[in-house]
Amino acid sequence: MNTTRRTFLAAAATAVAASNAGATANVTTYPKLVHHVFFWLKNPDSKEDLAKLLAGLRTLAKIETVRGTHFGVPASTEKRDVVDNSYSASEILFFDDTAGQKVYQDHPVHKQFVADCQHLWEKVVVYDAISA
Amino acid sequence: MNTTRRTFLAAAATAVAASNAGATANVTTYPKLVHHVFFWLKNPDSKEDLAKLLAGLRTLAKIETVRGTHFGVPASTEKRDVVDNSYSASEILFFDDTAGQKVYQDHPVHKQFVADCQHLWEKVVVYDAISA
Repeated sequence: MNTTRRTFLAAAATAVAASNAGATANVTTYPKLVHHVFFWLKNPDSKEDLAKLLAGLRTLAKIETVRGTHFGVPASTEKRDVVDNSYSASEILFFDDTAGQKVYQDHPVHKQFVADCQHLWEKVVVYDAISA
Repeated sequence: MNTTRRTFLAAAATAVAASNAGATANVTTYPKLVHHVFFWLKNPDSKEDLAKLLAGLRTLAKIETVRGTHFGVPASTEKRDVVDNSYSASEILFFDDTAGQKVYQDHPVHKQFVADCQHLWEKVVVYDAISA
Protein backbone atom coordinates (compact mmCIF):
# COMPACT_ATOMS: atom_id res chain seq x y z
CA MET A 1 0.00 0.00 0.00
CA ASN A 2 1.46 3.43 -0.83
CA THR A 3 1.87 6.21 1.70
CA THR A 4 -0.97 8.36 0.38
CA ARG A 5 -3.41 5.50 0.62
CA ARG A 6 -2.13 4.54 4.07
CA THR A 7 -2.58 8.12 5.25
CA PHE A 8 -6.09 8.26 3.78
CA LEU A 9 -7.01 5.03 5.53
CA ALA A 10 -5.64 6.21 8.86
CA ALA A 11 -7.56 9.49 8.59
CA ALA A 12 -10.67 7.66 7.45
CA ALA A 13 -10.47 5.18 10.33
CA THR A 14 -10.27 8.09 12.77
CA ALA A 15 -13.23 9.80 11.11
CA VAL A 16 -15.33 6.64 11.21
CA ALA A 17 -14.46 5.98 14.83
CA ALA A 18 -15.30 9.56 15.82
CA SER A 19 -18.61 9.47 13.97
CA ASN A 20 -20.04 6.63 16.06
CA ALA A 21 -22.73 8.15 18.27
CA GLY A 22 -21.64 8.51 21.85
CA ALA A 23 -18.13 7.25 21.20
CA THR A 24 -15.17 8.64 23.06
CA ALA A 25 -12.87 10.31 20.50
CA ASN A 26 -10.27 7.56 20.23
CA VAL A 27 -12.57 4.58 20.73
CA THR A 28 -14.59 2.60 18.20
CA THR A 29 -17.99 1.18 19.07
CA TYR A 30 -19.16 -2.01 17.39
CA PRO A 31 -22.33 -3.61 16.04
CA LYS A 32 -24.93 -4.41 18.66
CA LEU A 33 -24.82 -8.17 18.97
CA VAL A 34 -21.67 -10.00 19.96
CA HIS A 35 -21.32 -13.77 19.93
CA HIS A 36 -18.39 -14.83 22.16
CA VAL A 37 -17.31 -18.47 21.99
CA PHE A 38 -14.55 -20.24 23.92
CA PHE A 39 -13.25 -23.68 22.93
CA TRP A 40 -11.32 -26.23 24.97
CA LEU A 41 -9.54 -28.78 22.73
CA LYS A 42 -9.53 -32.50 23.54
CA ASN A 43 -5.78 -32.38 22.83
CA PRO A 44 -4.80 -28.96 24.18
CA ASP A 45 -1.13 -29.52 23.35
CA SER A 46 -1.76 -30.36 19.69
CA LYS A 47 -0.70 -27.45 17.50
CA GLU A 48 -2.20 -29.28 14.56
CA ASP A 49 -5.64 -29.50 16.18
CA LEU A 50 -5.47 -25.82 17.12
CA ALA A 51 -4.54 -24.90 13.55
CA LYS A 52 -7.49 -26.95 12.22
CA LEU A 53 -9.88 -25.25 14.62
CA LEU A 54 -8.62 -21.75 13.75
CA ALA A 55 -8.84 -22.52 10.02
CA GLY A 56 -12.43 -23.67 10.54
CA LEU A 57 -13.27 -20.54 12.52
CA ARG A 58 -11.95 -18.29 9.76
CA THR A 59 -14.49 -19.75 7.30
CA LEU A 60 -17.27 -18.20 9.42
CA ALA A 61 -16.30 -14.72 8.20
CA LYS A 62 -17.87 -15.64 4.84
CA ILE A 63 -21.37 -15.63 6.33
CA GLU A 64 -23.15 -12.56 5.03
CA THR A 65 -24.53 -11.29 8.33
CA VAL A 66 -21.14 -11.34 10.09
CA ARG A 67 -19.97 -7.74 10.57
CA GLY A 68 -16.67 -8.33 12.33
CA THR A 69 -14.48 -11.08 13.69
CA HIS A 70 -11.72 -11.75 16.19
CA PHE A 71 -10.19 -15.21 16.53
CA GLY A 72 -7.66 -15.69 19.29
CA VAL A 73 -5.74 -17.77 21.77
CA PRO A 74 -4.95 -16.95 25.42
CA ALA A 75 -2.88 -13.78 25.71
CA SER A 76 0.14 -13.52 27.98
CA THR A 77 -1.48 -10.96 30.28
CA GLU A 78 -0.90 -10.99 34.02
CA LYS A 79 -2.11 -14.15 35.81
CA ARG A 80 -4.88 -13.23 38.24
CA ASP A 81 -7.52 -15.34 40.05
CA VAL A 82 -10.30 -14.01 37.84
CA VAL A 83 -8.50 -14.72 34.55
CA ASP A 84 -9.39 -17.99 32.82
CA ASN A 85 -6.58 -18.87 30.42
CA SER A 86 -7.42 -22.58 30.26
CA TYR A 87 -9.25 -22.35 26.92
CA SER A 88 -7.62 -23.18 23.58
CA ALA A 89 -9.24 -20.71 21.18
CA SER A 90 -11.67 -17.81 21.28
CA GLU A 91 -14.10 -16.47 18.70
CA ILE A 92 -15.89 -13.15 18.51
CA LEU A 93 -18.46 -12.50 15.81
CA PHE A 94 -20.36 -9.23 15.62
CA PHE A 95 -23.87 -9.00 14.13
CA ASP A 96 -26.27 -6.11 13.73
CA ASP A 97 -28.99 -7.92 15.67
CA THR A 98 -30.33 -11.30 16.85
CA ALA A 99 -31.78 -11.93 13.37
CA GLY A 100 -28.27 -11.72 11.93
CA GLN A 101 -27.02 -14.16 14.56
CA LYS A 102 -29.84 -16.58 13.69
CA VAL A 103 -28.89 -16.49 9.98
CA TYR A 104 -25.35 -17.44 11.03
CA GLN A 105 -26.53 -20.17 13.41
CA ASP A 106 -28.50 -21.92 10.66
CA HIS A 107 -26.06 -21.17 7.81
CA PRO A 108 -24.51 -24.07 5.80
CA VAL A 109 -21.02 -22.58 6.35
CA HIS A 110 -21.56 -22.71 10.13
CA LYS A 111 -22.96 -26.24 9.96
CA GLN A 112 -19.97 -27.33 7.87
CA PHE A 113 -17.61 -25.84 10.47
CA VAL A 114 -19.33 -27.78 13.25
CA ALA A 115 -19.28 -31.00 11.22
CA ASP A 116 -15.58 -30.58 10.37
CA CYS A 117 -14.32 -29.43 13.76
CA GLN A 118 -16.53 -30.60 16.62
CA HIS A 119 -14.45 -33.75 17.12
CA LEU A 120 -11.56 -31.45 18.09
CA TRP A 121 -13.10 -29.87 21.18
CA GLU A 122 -14.26 -31.29 24.50
CA LYS A 123 -16.01 -28.16 25.76
CA VAL A 124 -17.45 -24.99 24.29
CA VAL A 125 -18.99 -22.02 26.10
CA VAL A 126 -21.03 -19.35 24.32
CA TYR A 127 -22.01 -15.91 25.61
CA ASP A 128 -24.33 -13.86 23.38
CA ALA A 129 -24.56 -10.20 24.39
CA ILE A 130 -26.53 -7.24 23.11
CA SER A 131 -25.35 -3.65 23.57
CA ALA A 132 -26.56 -2.01 26.77
CA MET B 1 -24.38 14.83 9.78
CA ASN B 2 -24.90 15.86 6.16
CA THR B 3 -25.24 13.41 3.28
CA THR B 4 -21.83 14.10 1.79
CA ARG B 5 -20.12 13.43 5.08
CA ARG B 6 -22.24 10.33 5.70
CA THR B 7 -21.31 9.01 2.24
CA PHE B 8 -17.64 9.73 2.86
CA LEU B 9 -17.75 7.90 6.15
CA ALA B 10 -19.49 4.88 4.62
CA ALA B 11 -16.94 4.71 1.81
CA ALA B 12 -14.10 5.22 4.27
CA ALA B 13 -15.39 2.49 6.57
CA THR B 14 -15.49 0.09 3.65
CA ALA B 15 -11.98 1.07 2.58
CA VAL B 16 -10.62 0.61 6.10
CA ALA B 17 -12.35 -2.75 6.49
CA ALA B 18 -11.08 -3.95 3.11
CA SER B 19 -7.54 -2.83 3.87
CA ASN B 20 -7.20 -5.14 6.87
CA ALA B 21 -4.89 -7.96 5.79
CA GLY B 22 -6.77 -11.16 5.10
CA ALA B 23 -10.17 -9.66 5.76
CA THR B 24 -13.23 -10.89 3.92
CA ALA B 25 -14.72 -8.00 1.95
CA ASN B 26 -17.71 -7.26 4.22
CA VAL B 27 -16.04 -8.06 7.53
CA THR B 28 -13.99 -5.85 9.83
CA THR B 29 -11.06 -7.22 11.75
CA TYR B 30 -10.16 -5.69 15.10
CA PRO B 31 -7.11 -4.78 17.17
CA LYS B 32 -5.07 -7.75 18.29
CA LEU B 33 -5.78 -8.00 22.00
CA VAL B 34 -9.29 -8.49 23.32
CA HIS B 35 -10.18 -8.39 27.01
CA HIS B 36 -13.53 -10.14 27.58
CA VAL B 37 -15.12 -9.80 31.03
CA PHE B 38 -18.37 -11.29 32.34
CA PHE B 39 -20.00 -10.09 35.56
CA TRP B 40 -22.57 -11.81 37.77
CA LEU B 41 -24.33 -9.31 40.06
CA LYS B 42 -25.02 -10.10 43.72
CA ASN B 43 -28.55 -8.84 43.07
CA PRO B 44 -29.22 -10.04 39.53
CA ASP B 45 -32.77 -8.67 39.55
CA SER B 46 -31.72 -5.15 40.54
CA LYS B 47 -32.01 -2.84 37.53
CA GLU B 48 -30.38 -0.13 39.63
CA ASP B 49 -27.30 -2.24 40.31
CA LEU B 50 -27.05 -3.19 36.64
CA ALA B 51 -27.29 0.47 35.63
CA LYS B 52 -24.53 1.38 38.13
CA LEU B 53 -22.28 -1.36 36.76
CA LEU B 54 -22.87 -0.34 33.14
CA ALA B 55 -22.23 3.32 33.96
CA GLY B 56 -18.98 2.28 35.62
CA LEU B 57 -17.96 0.17 32.62
CA ARG B 58 -18.50 3.09 30.24
CA THR B 59 -15.88 5.15 32.10
CA LEU B 60 -13.24 2.64 30.95
CA ALA B 61 -13.48 3.96 27.37
CA LYS B 62 -11.59 7.06 28.57
CA ILE B 63 -8.37 5.06 29.06
CA GLU B 64 -5.99 6.06 26.30
CA THR B 65 -4.95 2.58 25.19
CA VAL B 66 -8.53 1.34 24.71
CA ARG B 67 -9.20 1.01 20.97
CA GLY B 68 -12.77 -0.24 21.03
CA THR B 69 -15.54 -1.24 23.43
CA HIS B 70 -18.71 -3.29 23.64
CA PHE B 71 -20.77 -3.36 26.83
CA GLY B 72 -23.73 -5.72 26.89
CA VAL B 73 -26.30 -7.87 28.63
CA PRO B 74 -27.47 -11.37 27.64
CA ALA B 75 -29.08 -11.36 24.19
CA SER B 76 -32.31 -13.18 23.46
CA THR B 77 -30.69 -15.70 21.13
CA GLU B 78 -31.82 -19.32 21.02
CA LYS B 79 -31.35 -21.24 24.29
CA ARG B 80 -28.88 -24.07 23.77
CA ASP B 81 -26.88 -26.22 26.21
CA VAL B 82 -23.63 -24.46 25.35
CA VAL B 83 -25.01 -20.94 25.83
CA ASP B 84 -24.36 -19.33 29.21
CA ASN B 85 -26.90 -16.56 29.70
CA SER B 86 -26.61 -16.48 33.49
CA TYR B 87 -24.29 -13.45 33.58
CA SER B 88 -25.51 -9.91 34.24
CA ALA B 89 -23.21 -7.79 32.07
CA SER B 90 -20.41 -8.26 29.55
CA GLU B 91 -17.47 -6.08 28.63
CA ILE B 92 -15.18 -6.19 25.61
CA LEU B 93 -12.17 -3.91 25.38
CA PHE B 94 -9.80 -4.02 22.43
CA PHE B 95 -6.13 -3.08 22.74
CA ASP B 96 -3.27 -3.05 20.25
CA ASP B 97 -1.17 -5.35 22.41
CA THR B 98 -0.54 -6.71 25.94
CA ALA B 99 1.30 -3.47 26.82
CA GLY B 100 -1.91 -1.53 26.12
CA GLN B 101 -3.88 -3.92 28.31
CA LYS B 102 -1.34 -3.47 31.13
CA VAL B 103 -1.71 0.34 30.97
CA TYR B 104 -5.47 -0.15 31.36
CA GLN B 105 -5.08 -2.68 34.20
CA ASP B 106 -3.02 -0.23 36.26
CA HIS B 107 -4.86 2.95 35.20
CA PRO B 108 -6.51 5.18 37.87
CA VAL B 109 -9.78 5.14 35.88
CA HIS B 110 -9.83 1.33 36.02
CA LYS B 111 -8.95 1.31 39.73
CA GLN B 112 -11.74 3.83 40.40
CA PHE B 113 -14.21 1.61 38.53
CA VAL B 114 -13.22 -1.40 40.66
CA ALA B 115 -13.45 0.64 43.87
CA ASP B 116 -16.88 2.03 42.92
CA CYS B 117 -18.44 -1.15 41.55
CA GLN B 118 -16.86 -4.29 42.99
CA HIS B 119 -19.44 -4.46 45.80
CA LEU B 120 -22.08 -5.01 43.08
CA TRP B 121 -20.77 -8.30 41.69
CA GLU B 122 -20.35 -11.74 43.22
CA LYS B 123 -18.36 -13.26 40.37
CA VAL B 124 -16.28 -12.04 37.46
CA VAL B 125 -14.59 -14.09 34.73
CA VAL B 126 -11.93 -12.64 32.42
CA TYR B 127 -10.66 -14.09 29.15
CA ASP B 128 -7.75 -12.25 27.48
CA ALA B 129 -7.14 -13.31 23.89
CA ILE B 130 -4.59 -12.36 21.26
CA SER B 131 -5.27 -12.67 17.51
CA ALA B 132 -4.32 -16.02 16.04
